Amino acid sequence: MVVQKAVKTLNADLLNERNRGTFNVEELTNLIDGGAEKTKERRELVEFFVKDPLLHDKVPPEYLSYVERYEEAIRKSCLMVGKINEWIDLKKTGSSVELYQAILGGMLGSAILKDGMPFALHYVMFIPAILGQGTLEQQAYWIGRAWNCQIMGTYAQTELGHGTFIRGLETTAHYDPTTEEFILNSPTLTSYKWWPGGLGQTSNYAIVVAQLYTKGECHGIHPFVVQLRDEESHMPLPGIDIGEIGCKMGMNGTNQGYLGFKKFRIPRDQMLMKNSQVLKDGTYVKSPSDKLTYGTMIFVRVALIKGVSLSYLSKAVTIATRYSAVRRQSELRPGEAEPLIMEYKTQQYKLFPNIASAFGMLFSANWLWSMYHSVTSELEQGDLERLPEMHAIACCLKAVSTSDAARGIEECRKACGGHGYMTCSNLPFSYGMATAAETYEGENTVLYLQTARFLMKAWYQARTGTKLPLTTAYLTQNESLTKFPWSNTMLNVIAAYRQVAYGLIKETTGKVDRMIATGVQQEDAWNNYSISLVQCAQAHCRLFMIEKFFASVKEANVSPHLRTVLMQLCELYGVYFLLNNLGFFLMYSSVRIGDISSIQDWQDSLLAVLRPNAVSIVDSFDICDEILSSPLGAYDGNVYERLFEEANKSPLNAKPVNSSFEKYLKPFLKSNL
Amino acid sequence: MVVQKAVKTLNADLLNERNRGTFNVEELTNLIDGGAEKTKERRELVEFFVKDPLLHDKVPPEYLSYVERYEEAIRKSCLMVGKINEWIDLKKTGSSVELYQAILGGMLGSAILKDGMPFALHYVMFIPAILGQGTLEQQAYWIGRAWNCQIMGTYAQTELGHGTFIRGLETTAHYDPTTEEFILNSPTLTSYKWWPGGLGQTSNYAIVVAQLYTKGECHGIHPFVVQLRDEESHMPLPGIDIGEIGCKMGMNGTNQGYLGFKKFRIPRDQMLMKNSQVLKDGTYVKSPSDKLTYGTMIFVRVALIKGVSLSYLSKAVTIATRYSAVRRQSELRPGEAEPLIMEYKTQQYKLFPNIASAFGMLFSANWLWSMYHSVTSELEQGDLERLPEMHAIACCLKAVSTSDAARGIEECRKACGGHGYMTCSNLPFSYGMATAAETYEGENTVLYLQTARFLMKAWYQARTGTKLPLTTAYLTQNESLTKFPWSNTMLNVIAAYRQVAYGLIKETTGKVDRMIATGVQQEDAWNNYSISLVQCAQAHCRLFMIEKFFASVKEANVSPHLRTVLMQLCELYGVYFLLNNLGFFLMYSSVRIGDISSIQDWQDSLLAVLRPNAVSIVDSFDICDEILSSPLGAYDGNVYERLFEEANKSPLNAKPVNSSFEKYLKPFLKSNL
Repeated sequence: MVVQKAVKTLNADLLNERNRGTFNVEELTNLIDGGAEKTKERRELVEFFVKDPLLHDKVPPEYLSYVERYEEAIRKSCLMVGKINEWIDLKKTGSSVELYQAILGGMLGSAILKDGMPFALHYVMFIPAILGQGTLEQQAYWIGRAWNCQIMGTYAQTELGHGTFIRGLETTAHYDPTTEEFILNSPTLTSYKWWPGGLGQTSNYAIVVAQLYTKGECHGIHPFVVQLRDEESHMPLPGIDIGEIGCKMGMNGTNQGYLGFKKFRIPRDQMLMKNSQVLKDGTYVKSPSDKLTYGTMIFVRVALIKGVSLSYLSKAVTIATRYSAVRRQSELRPGEAEPLIMEYKTQQYKLFPNIASAFGMLFSANWLWSMYHSVTSELEQGDLERLPEMHAIACCLKAVSTSDAARGIEECRKACGGHGYMTCSNLPFSYGMATAAETYEGENTVLYLQTARFLMKAWYQARTGTKLPLTTAYLTQNESLTKFPWSNTMLNVIAAYRQVAYGLIKETTGKVDRMIATGVQQEDAWNNYSISLVQCAQAHCRLFMIEKFFASVKEANVSPHLRTVLMQLCELYGVYFLLNNLGFFLMYSSVRIGDISSIQDWQDSLLAVLRPNAVSIVDSFDICDEILSSPLGAYDGNVYERLFEEANKSPLNAKPVNSSFEKYLKPFLKSNL
Repeated sequence: MVVQKAVKTLNADLLNERNRGTFNVEELTNLIDGGAEKTKERRELVEFFVKDPLLHDKVPPEYLSYVERYEEAIRKSCLMVGKINEWIDLKKTGSSVELYQAILGGMLGSAILKDGMPFALHYVMFIPAILGQGTLEQQAYWIGRAWNCQIMGTYAQTELGHGTFIRGLETTAHYDPTTEEFILNSPTLTSYKWWPGGLGQTSNYAIVVAQLYTKGECHGIHPFVVQLRDEESHMPLPGIDIGEIGCKMGMNGTNQGYLGFKKFRIPRDQMLMKNSQVLKDGTYVKSPSDKLTYGTMIFVRVALIKGVSLSYLSKAVTIATRYSAVRRQSELRPGEAEPLIMEYKTQQYKLFPNIASAFGMLFSANWLWSMYHSVTSELEQGDLERLPEMHAIACCLKAVSTSDAARGIEECRKACGGHGYMTCSNLPFSYGMATAAETYEGENTVLYLQTARFLMKAWYQARTGTKLPLTTAYLTQNESLTKFPWSNTMLNVIAAYRQVAYGLIKETTGKVDRMIATGVQQEDAWNNYSISLVQCAQAHCRLFMIEKFFASVKEANVSPHLRTVLMQLCELYGVYFLLNNLGFFLMYSSVRIGDISSIQDWQDSLLAVLRPNAVSIVDSFDICDEILSSPLGAYDGNVYERLFEEANKSPLNAKPVNSSFEKYLKPFLKSNL
């Protein structure tokens, strides 16, 4: 983490940019945070953590060995949890899983434990799983111990050979009524648990998901609380084969592990039995509803849109935009000084749509959070009606957001030229963390196809006159098909997105149907058109995002100056993705070939009007230097001084001559080949 | 590097795939290599290097500290150069820069020094620069010492504040006639040299590019041979400030460095004077042509299309395709076994277009190599006519290839799900190396705009009736505008690409002209439309690639079975990029909205016909396990056993309990928070 060593002068170009802004940065910050009070709270919290020198890295983690990096992650994680408790005492906030999740995940966590945290799943999955799936007795026994960190847990579901398709899991739990125990076993190599964070060397307990067998019958997957290591010696228990899965593209602080069971026995009461139960004699009692566990899965997906995608993307655009307002290169007009690279249209085109994209994510995620809260309380009253709709929108929004964020971060990194490639720019770390989310918690293609399945169903329902939920209501509207003469307005843009989603879903459904009519099995027809089905889900999601973006800007309680800027971002968002999917717009929407040139001009003019506000907009994300952790993006714009300071943190620079010279290089140079 | 430890059984699914192939794999391998003899030579060379246990890693580099990784890179580089000399003696091939470059770059080098090599610039830039820009006396003095590795050099051009725009370099070389010396100086922090490989701790000499001043006048940038470190002690010389720039996203074996001069003096004869000269009294004698140095730049760009983009992309598709023929997931039809993930259309769509893309790169690069060789001999005879055309095509082909490769590798990585995220999959390393090439040797956007400038010029020339060179001849053909009724043939696809390039260039030129006519300065009009200008260069390049792909398959001396498969790949290439840029095809080509559905069906059917040959096609790249270096892609398909073996190389798994338990974790767990 970069810690400002001395007060540096503010870079004159960056100061100039800030003076050009046409709106109040603090007003936008408050809007992003959800109110001035929230901004104040966030700043206090950040200040409390990032100023603690014990949480700063002496040597950046990328220079340490893999083992040292793990040890540092453990040292800092212990301190971090202690400090959260200090904060709770200080602010008398009361303790909650949400507070831990907020501090450990998101911006703050990513600043202090840049490459992930080995305790994360204890708070994100272990405790919530016991709360959500344990009986009251089980909660009473386990939660206290977990909450005080007397035990450290993880969540072991994914296996070496089995990921998103959880019905395929191979780990077994056979009930033995004679001893009233479950026997956990890993029958194959592919059944080894693989990926859980903290499983390698950190956790001593885990929730293990396994196929339950009792009275000779398999009842599908169920969760069990399993002790993995001795609480005193931390040695793996007999029958437990445990280790770490090795280095990854990122998240190397999370200590992901593998786990195999050799007929390992646990007492009957360690199956989490809030839903289904196994009685003493081995009788299986089925859960009244298996949909109730959907809630947690949706929660995690919604959480990661803001906590991962939005977090890392807003960091990346801040870094790249500030850098582009300091870096000078080439010449625009012969003989003149090298211009700021932000003057280049191509550079604006790399940055500004990604800034807009961050706001698109923010507003959609806010909307989905409110939906999540109301659907959750409906669920508690036994009302499951809106669950499929929420599931469908959460799936595609998770996929679109994680992929927009990952691609956007890479565009920002490349927009910083070679310097973006430096680890210290923090862009490579950000990409590593953001792209991981494209795969975990539901692989994106699989999620798109889940949304597509929902959309196909909605399409047929609409044809039979069934009233559809809000987010798919447009499928009932035949006017979605009516073409209108184009003019460059946001209402037309939104209508065009609606026409595209409608048109794609209509055409793809038709193709699938026609293939089935020729005698092809439904599953094969579905698979044959799955490329189009993914596009349907993407179009549906983009429509959702642009609608929420537009409505949020319209309805926001902000000054006219700010609303103007937000509407420019919203327009850029709409126009950018329209031009990037032009084929579909020409096929299905009111956009005609003759309209394209004016839409391109619109995009060019939006880039131009956003140009003077670019630095102010990213300033409004209000990400402090310690969290940005990038010499390219620091608030003061002293890019080159800071890059030089970072280079000199490389331990290779500690000595003028590395020992490999005497050992290898000198003998080689003197050998006279 | 993965070394096969025991003979493992061939995975049955993979064996089944190999039995399904409809063509002779060896025939395709020979075509890729350029003949059976070339295949034999390559295999011998690979065998000679990859079987040497001294070149194998005891611990994979990602587990070492940064300093240890550097020391290992030096150890292995010294061994590697020694081994190249052994090879030269053994095979009596004679020594050449090309041989060193071939072995150190490309597949073989990337297998042995996975994260880059600190000696690379000695062979790729230092020696070639002296050969190309030194006088005969200078060559006589320096080349012998460099060739025998008595000195180790690098090439220092890029500065902390200056990259692609080399006229902006700030390092100065003032000539002092009283002592007949140049005084090298770094007047600012931004003038520090930054990025040269091997500069940090390895090299003791460098070619330094600096602004030449003599008799009070600046003559622009010139190259100087500069000693950096004492040959005995390796200590930096007084007046030289040198160090390493720190950790990067990849290439951490290359020891990239920084370099500043404090009025550092070198003798007059250390300016490379083959072209321009400074006489003893300080008189400057200008070079007859400054275009001669273009040659080297083009050489490097052409070389990296094959040596980097194609190399890493063909590795990635091999890994992901074999993995997809072993991994099983989810269900296609209820109740049936989990299918191979390659059965999913969406998976085929991630893999096969990238396989096709590798062939597209291969054939275009081959064509450009022949052009390079003939243009080079024309240059030697003073004929510069084809230089601008070659420069233009090399620029956009470098940009398109590096960006196709980087994106393709990431698609392959994500197509392997979580396991692709493991460092041992070798996909993250491959991406790190491939994406670097999007920025170095000319940043891609800058290169596109250079090609666009050439295209605009060609457009105007065509309007005045000037005969255009081969690659832009289509701009003279007005029939490019004539629309024809669509049917799915390759000739139509190629014609459509031509129409798109023609249409984009015509429309963009028109827009730039019209804006200039309203009184806007040319440079500003150019900048305003630069997003479209980039698209012009991309369309031109894609047309070039599809034409060369098609012609190469037509003309190849191969069996009908093989030609069928290659033509399927060529068609997929054409159809895939058409559908991915559908908007432009609807705007400019003969493709009509009513044709799209049949083009999508064509793509679906191409994926289906390529499916049974997918493994055989990637087998034909003939990349041995040691070079692939990925448990997901090994020839035998034992994915899970190999992943497990790799995990157990993590030094964290050496002990059942890490020392951080006693030090941090136990006190924390026992503290009863």
